[in-house]
Amino acid sequence: MAGNSTGKVFVLTTFGEPHGKAIGGIIDGCPADMVVDYALISSMLKQRQTAPFPKNRRREEDKVEFLSGILDGKTTGMPIAFLIPNQDARSEDYQQEELMLKNSHAHYVYWQKYGLFDHRGGGRASARETASWVVGGCFAIMLLKRYNVQIEVYTTQIGNVKWENSLETINAVSEENVLHCPDASLANQMLAELEKTANNRDTVGCKVGCVVKNLPVGLGEPVFDKLSADLAKAMISIPAAKGFEYGLGFDAAAKRGSEANDVFLPDFRTKTNFSGGIQAGISNGENIYFSVAFKPIPTIMQAQQTVNIKGEPCILQGKGRHDICASPRVLPVVVSMTALTLADHLLMNKTTTCNS
Amino acid sequence: MAGNSTGKVFVLTTFGEPHGKAIGGIIDGCPADMVVDYALISSMLKQRQTAPFPKNRRREEDKVEFLSGILDGKTTGMPIAFLIPNQDARSEDYQQEELMLKNSHAHYVYWQKYGLFDHRGGGRASARETASWVVGGCFAIMLLKRYNVQIEVYTTQIGNVKWENSLETINAVSEENVLHCPDASLANQMLAELEKTANNRDTVGCKVGCVVKNLPVGLGEPVFDKLSADLAKAMISIPAAKGFEYGLGFDAAAKRGSEANDVFLPDFRTKTNFSGGIQAGISNGENIYFSVAFKPIPTIMQAQQTVNIKGEPCILQGKGRHDICASPRVLPVVVSMTALTLADHLLMNKTTTCNS
Amino acid sequence: MAGNSTGKVFVLTTFGEPHGKAIGGIIDGCPADMVVDYALISSMLKQRQTAPFPKNRRREEDKVEFLSGILDGKTTGMPIAFLIPNQDARSEDYQQEELMLKNSHAHYVYWQKYGLFDHRGGGRASARETASWVVGGCFAIMLLKRYNVQIEVYTTQIGNVKWENSLETINAVSEENVLHCPDASLANQMLAELEKTANNRDTVGCKVGCVVKNLPVGLGEPVFDKLSADLAKAMISIPAAKGFEYGLGFDAAAKRGSEANDVFLPDFRTKTNFSGGIQAGISNGENIYFSVAFKPIPTIMQAQQTVNIKGEPCILQGKGRHDICASPRVLPVVVSMTALTLADHLLMNKTTTCNS
Amino acid sequence: MAGNSTGKVFVLTTFGEPHGKAIGGIIDGCPADMVVDYALISSMLKQRQTAPFPKNRRREEDKVEFLSGILDGKTTGMPIAFLIPNQDARSEDYQQEELMLKNSHAHYVYWQKYGLFDHRGGGRASARETASWVVGGCFAIMLLKRYNVQIEVYTTQIGNVKWENSLETINAVSEENVLHCPDASLANQMLAELEKTANNRDTVGCKVGCVVKNLPVGLGEPVFDKLSADLAKAMISIPAAKGFEYGLGFDAAAKRGSEANDVFLPDFRTKTNFSGGIQAGISNGENIYFSVAFKPIPTIMQAQQTVNIKGEPCILQGKGRHDICASPRVLPVVVSMTALTLADHLLMNKTTTCNS
Repeated sequence: MAGNSTGKVFVLTTFGEPHGKAIGGIIDGCPADMVVDYALISSMLKQRQTAPFPKNRRREEDKVEFLSGILDGKTTGMPIAFLIPNQDARSEDYQQEELMLKNSHAHYVYWQKYGLFDHRGGGRASARETASWVVGGCFAIMLLKRYNVQIEVYTTQIGNVKWENSLETINAVSEENVLHCPDASLANQMLAELEKTANNRDTVGCKVGCVVKNLPVGLGEPVFDKLSADLAKAMISIPAAKGFEYGLGFDAAAKRGSEANDVFLPDFRTKTNFSGGIQAGISNGENIYFSVAFKPIPTIMQAQQTVNIKGEPCILQGKGRHDICASPRVLPVVVSMTALTLADHLLMNKTTTCNS
Repeated sequence: MAGNSTGKVFVLTTFGEPHGKAIGGIIDGCPADMVVDYALISSMLKQRQTAPFPKNRRREEDKVEFLSGILDGKTTGMPIAFLIPNQDARSEDYQQEELMLKNSHAHYVYWQKYGLFDHRGGGRASARETASWVVGGCFAIMLLKRYNVQIEVYTTQIGNVKWENSLETINAVSEENVLHCPDASLANQMLAELEKTANNRDTVGCKVGCVVKNLPVGLGEPVFDKLSADLAKAMISIPAAKGFEYGLGFDAAAKRGSEANDVFLPDFRTKTNFSGGIQAGISNGENIYFSVAFKPIPTIMQAQQTVNIKGEPCILQGKGRHDICASPRVLPVVVSMTALTLADHLLMNKTTTCNS
Repeated sequence: MAGNSTGKVFVLTTFGEPHGKAIGGIIDGCPADMVVDYALISSMLKQRQTAPFPKNRRREEDKVEFLSGILDGKTTGMPIAFLIPNQDARSEDYQQEELMLKNSHAHYVYWQKYGLFDHRGGGRASARETASWVVGGCFAIMLLKRYNVQIEVYTTQIGNVKWENSLETINAVSEENVLHCPDASLANQMLAELEKTANNRDTVGCKVGCVVKNLPVGLGEPVFDKLSADLAKAMISIPAAKGFEYGLGFDAAAKRGSEANDVFLPDFRTKTNFSGGIQAGISNGENIYFSVAFKPIPTIMQAQQTVNIKGEPCILQGKGRHDICASPRVLPVVVSMTALTLADHLLMNKTTTCNS
Repeated sequence: MAGNSTGKVFVLTTFGEPHGKAIGGIIDGCPADMVVDYALISSMLKQRQTAPFPKNRRREEDKVEFLSGILDGKTTGMPIAFLIPNQDARSEDYQQEELMLKNSHAHYVYWQKYGLFDHRGGGRASARETASWVVGGCFAIMLLKRYNVQIEVYTTQIGNVKWENSLETINAVSEENVLHCPDASLANQMLAELEKTANNRDTVGCKVGCVVKNLPVGLGEPVFDKLSADLAKAMISIPAAKGFEYGLGFDAAAKRGSEANDVFLPDFRTKTNFSGGIQAGISNGENIYFSVAFKPIPTIMQAQQTVNIKGEPCILQGKGRHDICASPRVLPVVVSMTALTLADHLLMNKTTTCNS
């Protein structure tokens, strides 16, 4: 059933597979009269293409072509369609593997669900899909900027290298290093971890933190479209995501009420922010912060046991120049999915009261 | 904006506040000709009312009244409306507190969002709301049982008492203790933790695990309505939930690809189940397992600093007989939200192929 | 699949069958802080119960019970649940007919679709359902009144008695007669037509016109959620509706462009209003006007040939005190469905531009 | 708010303006494993380009480019994106008119709604948009053909030339003439009417009938997503549509119940089909038939009074080679919107019962 749309008011619908002509999407419900920030889009797409390892990977910058919904550099309120051509679709590379099921990959479930085995690779489950999410997300960011909302993203763990502090009170400028690690010296340890992993022909998991600043109070729709719930859905939609937590997160399980409550101050701000900026599913004016865990990239440069579509055991020999870790390439994707969720809620919230 | 519905095909819409006449809901899209299991509904609602502490709490069993959609004990395919009367709405108890903002509670954000301060309590944000979710969830369970799908739930942490194993291979019968702890002796430690917390006039957080067995392969709609993403949304919708993880969850961040992949066997099952039964957002036939973290109940029996709606500092004196911990009362809620999500996906998946 | 909701932002979900305990619904997405006009609700429900024929029909006034979403006489922004008890459910009256298929009635299609034959009558297809639509519609009217929007309704045809003018420039006060006929003397002819029909133990069709005044410019969402298209859907949802036309309607087929265009005036109003207040699916500030045709009530007080559920021919003997004509009872239903559609579009339109 | 999608399960989302690079759309929810009938698509698009007048109009055939969702000539269950390049976007032609409001056109309402005046023409309100509807509709037709469903379309009125019979029992082969008029000799009168209108530099309205054969019983979702209501919405979405009626339609207003009921026969078919194949909003197995009225094309080759965007009176001088009448070009659009509606309901109906 139609599952390729996200949002109720600010809606992104995407299409495309990495081995077809193009990927892309339609942004519907984007308000009129917004100046399109093309530099933001290029910058975010470039960031999604940039990773320190594997070193020799040639990455062409994704070029977006807009087909509608923009006039004289501004949104018109009409649907904004865009394409990103696939330049690098070498489907012949995939022929020898065509009957093998990759472990922890989408092939098997797509085959069972749709009755077709697409030998050309990950199809809609490919991380390439997220380039379209970034384009959609950039329009959401443009809307949020009119409200001064800022979204920051941080790599907080790569393998066993962890930043041990809380995002609650973070003020670090993280964009100085490619991983957006809050601690510059830790960033180097993370890079070393990535390099070691690459040398071992292996991949590694990671954790990413996100902080939203200046969000208005009142976003989130009780009881099933809570802001927290929609952020959770958006984050777990990202390929390889395995966990989401906000505010105290999983640490909350070990806390007492007397230590976890956020005490109100006379200006209605709170003394602490264990809640993570969302109370009862509605933004409370404090910074929103949450973390997302990503599993290691399943394609590794090692031989793995698997079976083919006949169920016969075989050996899958990893090759190519695949990513080592979801971060840093996932960082603009986290920002984009956050922005799409917030923009949708910002517009939804306009209908809560009946001011004429 | 209308946020009180969950599901696209199997839809539950709820209403009601704890201080009004009744709470309840409408289940729309429930298939016709299902035998209504009233015993299941009573049992689940009773479980939602049962907690070992505070000991002296009088809990009346919730009685459900069905108004439509059932004929001769079977669903008719028409919307099923139900009511649960509020027997215990003592709004006078709340008068002295009426102008105070409870810390880490919904009052402030609802006031800001809707422009009204409801002195009568938590309104839609109250955990009482989840009684309606359980009724809706029971109809989803009835549907899932026709496919032999089973949902099991476990308390895996209360405060600092943790069950340290993985849900991956769990086979324990957990229903023997009220907490559904996988380890019977650990259950006693958890109960002791609850008792100690109650004696300290405090509350405590917890973690709950859930395992789904026998789910068909193929549920989940790429790319934005993944089964994992919808489960995340459903879980984070539950009051007090702060985190969701499935499969390896946050531990995945520390793993290598060579140790985290699930190798296929000749019967297309996998040797391990680090993926948690969902691959690329689609069920793969292995057990689904996930965990949810809950913060401590914010209402504590201690004096807390806060402000009133004029922003004046004041002391909130906890009283009454509030819960100590989300578990065990949240257990049937986790099951119900899981069931609603799975039933919705089960029906959605019927439209994936065009068999006539 | 869940079809018992109407609206995207201002959403009414209904339930109930005439032979169950109650009918009712949930209004979700109604803005907070609106004063509830209980007199309007009573008056509209009473109007829905009032018809000149059959004369001896005893009609109890529908009493609405509100369960949630209202505090101190105002909406709170939370879902508004309401019940209308069924006082008059004499299911024993229906036993002898229980196996017969009523001609031009819902029994057969419901039986085929859901696999159940409900001997108790029309179920969800009963016109009783529209009482809930009226309750929902009244909340929409309350919202529209804040914008000074007015909705007027007229009976323009009963059988062969037709009001031959156009609604384009109507200014008549129609509420003076029970049929809301724009021409008082024609109203008497219509009443005579109804009486004659009743005496013949027959029923008769009718046509109803509706005019919306003072609607803001800009409501309607291109290209598939046009205001005109949503009004068409709302009207054709009403039991027994067979046709919808707006502006010139079916007469447009015979017109030339040179006579059907509406010429703009310097104040951006138009000299004529052949368009019916909607241009390209969007309200243009002129009065909206449209007509709806209703077939005769299919239950007649005459013997009719039909078959039972075994396919055996039998004679259905009409009895009871059924309505003679959709009008006047359908008039508040037309108003309510119009109001629900307009309120939904009014709220949707708030998200079109990004003013902060 | 996002209004560029139609359907709940089988969803078409469109984009594009006639003066941009391309129009197109995404079909989401189309089942997997359907053979793509490219010849059907070409033929329907060609039909949408073909009209007897104005004679000298050069019409280039629309070429569709598919970007995703198709592999080896079959649908994959993934979103199907398509483009139709705009070859003929001569925006310079429009410059002199750029500040004038065309009468009975979209300019004014779009300007008011979105705050932008697009001097380049009709934008999303242009009938060019319907080319994308035809592409989407063709995929719906492919699905319906697996169930042997047939959709036939007829021109039944052009100006004052009317086919006076009912569609109830039609068996004519109408495709022999370009207008698909059920009566071949009447077709010539209609063509003469078109020619006369063209010579007068005017345009003319029309009426189109549609008949659906072999539709399964049971499509339509009570109470707000009735099949009839969704067909009404789909038809009134078509540019220039002013009225919709099904079965007896507006004639029903003059009928008695004793003459309008459809009597059941032993095989559960009905002796007559005044209901038009839909009872209580659900298909009953008889042919569905309905009519749609279209106003004259508002762009005429005559001088018209209007105002510019400053409200100053001016004269709009028609020029170019615009259509004379909605028919015949609207015929494949009616078929396509019908097919989209039926395909959506066919898939929705799969979830009504819980057969595993």
